[in-house]
Amino acid sequence: MEREHNLVPEDAWWKRYLYRIIYRSDTKLGKLFDIILLLLILISTAIIMMESIPLLDKRYHYTFLILEWIISVLFSIEYAARIAVVKNKRHYVFSFFGIIDFLALIPFYLSFFFPVTKYFLIFRMLRMLRVFRVFNLMDFMNDGFVIVRALKNSSRKIYIFLLFLIIFSVIVGSMMFMVEGGRPGFETIPQSIYWAVVTVTTVGYGDVSPITPMGKFFAVILMLAGYSIIAVPTGIVTAEMRNKRQNLEKICDRCGNEDIDDDARYCKQCGKKLA
Amino acid sequence: MEREHNLVPEDAWWKRYLYRIIYRSDTKLGKLFDIILLLLILISTAIIMMESIPLLDKRYHYTFLILEWIISVLFSIEYAARIAVVKNKRHYVFSFFGIIDFLALIPFYLSFFFPVTKYFLIFRMLRMLRVFRVFNLMDFMNDGFVIVRALKNSSRKIYIFLLFLIIFSVIVGSMMFMVEGGRPGFETIPQSIYWAVVTVTTVGYGDVSPITPMGKFFAVILMLAGYSIIAVPTGIVTAEMRNKRQNLEKICDRCGNEDIDDDARYCKQCGKKLA
Amino acid sequence: MEREHNLVPEDAWWKRYLYRIIYRSDTKLGKLFDIILLLLILISTAIIMMESIPLLDKRYHYTFLILEWIISVLFSIEYAARIAVVKNKRHYVFSFFGIIDFLALIPFYLSFFFPVTKYFLIFRMLRMLRVFRVFNLMDFMNDGFVIVRALKNSSRKIYIFLLFLIIFSVIVGSMMFMVEGGRPGFETIPQSIYWAVVTVTTVGYGDVSPITPMGKFFAVILMLAGYSIIAVPTGIVTAEMRNKRQNLEKICDRCGNEDIDDDARYCKQCGKKLA
Amino acid sequence: MEREHNLVPEDAWWKRYLYRIIYRSDTKLGKLFDIILLLLILISTAIIMMESIPLLDKRYHYTFLILEWIISVLFSIEYAARIAVVKNKRHYVFSFFGIIDFLALIPFYLSFFFPVTKYFLIFRMLRMLRVFRVFNLMDFMNDGFVIVRALKNSSRKIYIFLLFLIIFSVIVGSMMFMVEGGRPGFETIPQSIYWAVVTVTTVGYGDVSPITPMGKFFAVILMLAGYSIIAVPTGIVTAEMRNKRQNLEKICDRCGNEDIDDDARYCKQCGKKLA
Repeated sequence: MEREHNLVPEDAWWKRYLYRIIYRSDTKLGKLFDIILLLLILISTAIIMMESIPLLDKRYHYTFLILEWIISVLFSIEYAARIAVVKNKRHYVFSFFGIIDFLALIPFYLSFFFPVTKYFLIFRMLRMLRVFRVFNLMDFMNDGFVIVRALKNSSRKIYIFLLFLIIFSVIVGSMMFMVEGGRPGFETIPQSIYWAVVTVTTVGYGDVSPITPMGKFFAVILMLAGYSIIAVPTGIVTAEMRNKRQNLEKICDRCGNEDIDDDARYCKQCGKKLA
Repeated sequence: MEREHNLVPEDAWWKRYLYRIIYRSDTKLGKLFDIILLLLILISTAIIMMESIPLLDKRYHYTFLILEWIISVLFSIEYAARIAVVKNKRHYVFSFFGIIDFLALIPFYLSFFFPVTKYFLIFRMLRMLRVFRVFNLMDFMNDGFVIVRALKNSSRKIYIFLLFLIIFSVIVGSMMFMVEGGRPGFETIPQSIYWAVVTVTTVGYGDVSPITPMGKFFAVILMLAGYSIIAVPTGIVTAEMRNKRQNLEKICDRCGNEDIDDDARYCKQCGKKLA
Repeated sequence: MEREHNLVPEDAWWKRYLYRIIYRSDTKLGKLFDIILLLLILISTAIIMMESIPLLDKRYHYTFLILEWIISVLFSIEYAARIAVVKNKRHYVFSFFGIIDFLALIPFYLSFFFPVTKYFLIFRMLRMLRVFRVFNLMDFMNDGFVIVRALKNSSRKIYIFLLFLIIFSVIVGSMMFMVEGGRPGFETIPQSIYWAVVTVTTVGYGDVSPITPMGKFFAVILMLAGYSIIAVPTGIVTAEMRNKRQNLEKICDRCGNEDIDDDARYCKQCGKKLA
Repeated sequence: MEREHNLVPEDAWWKRYLYRIIYRSDTKLGKLFDIILLLLILISTAIIMMESIPLLDKRYHYTFLILEWIISVLFSIEYAARIAVVKNKRHYVFSFFGIIDFLALIPFYLSFFFPVTKYFLIFRMLRMLRVFRVFNLMDFMNDGFVIVRALKNSSRKIYIFLLFLIIFSVIVGSMMFMVEGGRPGFETIPQSIYWAVVTVTTVGYGDVSPITPMGKFFAVILMLAGYSIIAVPTGIVTAEMRNKRQNLEKICDRCGNEDIDDDARYCKQCGKKLA
């Protein structure tokens, strides 16, 4: 999700022209390009989904194949154009979106040499991530960056929390294995851990649920714990999100007040006009 | 949910009189009008619900029909009165509540010309939204506006979050389709995506749940992710809601700035020392 | 949950003595009284629960009956003593805990005149609320009051939110009735509303779940909405809880700073020693 | 989770050398020791899990037994070394991690004298907690401490909340027992309470769900309540977590006060002007 690398080419005029259309969206053609790209991504994703439905696949198999061909060729042309037009080619190829663009194409070309397996699918699905590229251009992602940054800054705390949660689930699952031992859904420790995670995260499929009174008592305690624990990641992210809103701000050079809102024109502590 | 458009009619006295009863609730008759309206809305909704129960519908079919007739006529009279009494008629007709009032009536009149289909139902159900009109008058909605405003201000962030969530679910669902491929509930990609959303939102119906150990392992990771992700919308709205809280506090008596922090000593807009 | 009404009797010394034991917990006997009361409440609740289990009821029916008799007599004596010992008798009788004390006794006496029905049960269960009386005395409830106050202060916002949620569920349920119309679990509108609430609150029993692809698509949207909506009550209560933590504090009489922590000895804005 | 007790031995050089490797991770060998320990813990946990799977246990029973033997011997040597090398032996033995280390070993030695029962398992699983010891050294736990401290500081409020929740569930469960009385899943009061907890925590297994319309109506109210109540623990922890965030910031260089708000200009403990 890195910011667009501004590699304006200086050589040929048509490169500069194409660059602006492909990498920017401040021209009419640039916007059109984005919208077509967005449509192609969505159509491509829709085709992959529909292919997986036997009824549709049987009836429209060749339509899907041809459309997939056309889109893959268009994406290939786009990929080639992106490389041709950019100055620092290596920078693009190894950027986040460059890799996504590449991974989204590779299954198409591999399918010529190897039999198509369903494991190709997931790479084709990665194309969906390209949606963010378009939104990125559309200046829609500023709010997204706030979320990503808050998650990034609190990621260490969240990792620790998940570690706690996993170890907690493992121990609770093992205890439940002793309590319900061998009853359906609790045949092994990993199965019991699966139940513990399903319960503590309040998902509660119900494919596995306690049967004995003792097991139910135990489950009740676990649920109450999970209900209280859910507050922790929320607290972490909320604190971080509020944090971000203030760290970016200015500072008053008379009284040193750092708590200045974005729209403030005077310091709220000493009344000095802000620069 | 726009604020009431204050279109006091200046012509006839009876118009002014009726206007006050219908659009305001500061008179005894005005309050009575609101309560009767509220009751009619609730009865109307209750009838629609009961009609859908075959047992009740068979026994009381004509009672329901007659009651529906009476209420529809009363609502029609009310709608006509609202238009007659208001000065800026176009403003009312195209206001939020004006459209709701109209949509709630239309199925009744369409049923004379077209066979009644169950798709009329949803429009009739929209009548429930009229409840807010009554509460609006009852000065009960100020707190509601705070919620709506907080949601509106954070809507962009929430859209982005939902976009993330949808793309995440699509990719995870596709991966699960590869893992559980073809087992009941995972026959197609859209079905697997349905499962992914059910899991990540912690709803967990259990109509579809992973069967293979690999699938369960995968599901556990998804649940833990969902459990952490739930913090994001909460953080967004909480931060926004706290934000709004400051608006209600003080006001600068020089520049009229209302956005003053609790601990501010000078107005951040004009630099005036606050009382 | 009102604070204890301090009605120290001034007449007889034994009244004053008993009052201190019963209503306070600053003496040894007072603490013993509280602990015995707590035990009796817990035993009484346990008996009611066990009575409902046919196996246990058959075997220990008379033991339960006798124990219930003893506890009811003890509670009656306690109730009489509470009235006798207090000065403002009416105040006690109509206080929150006075009513609970009375309601918890009444089923026992009614059972002499009327056949015991299971509807008596809920009143007997209300005894559990008396637990709070004991905790109240044990100075354990200060933190509880913070929660209750935060909930009370944000109750209007929460009511509005619930109203939104109910109307949202009713409309969504009606739409689902049209989509899944008549399939198991969606036979009537009230049933569909039940499903909508189960889904939007992320409970997800799975006793009713969408069957058609259209219904599943619809459910996915509802789940995503519910996942975002859950942030609203959280935001409301969080904002209120933080709010409360500051409103109670002191004020600096030199600079007027109101943001003073509980443990502060000097004003953090002007450095003045706080009284 | 106490901080490492710094008991540098002063006697023998090899003790000091070993101490640094075992209790610290600032040397190459110390880091290697940590990584090997981490691997042994994970392998040991994996073995316990796999033992519980009949298929794997039957095939690899002796492999697991021998590996368990080797690991237990290694942990015994480590435990002995830890005691030998530390100066204040009692301090280590009765520290949090000292007890965990001991409990993780005891089932192995008990298995010589008593038949192995599955109840040994939970003690063997406690080994997982040793993971935190390693992370502790790796300076990864600072963020964990913030979480633990926030939970500790708000634990009283959370206990009160859980008490509320339990009493609420008991009363609601009893009411549901009266409503659904005797239908599957609601045969006894404890069973109904189990259902109430499953519902109010939004887990919703679906193994028990309301059947009668009255019961469903009741369940809907409970779900809406649970949906609003979930905000309470979140609010508590979030408020506490934001509170804690201030601790990490500045420090007063006169009195050493570390609890300084972002916007403070004077130390609130000694009144010194902050730099």
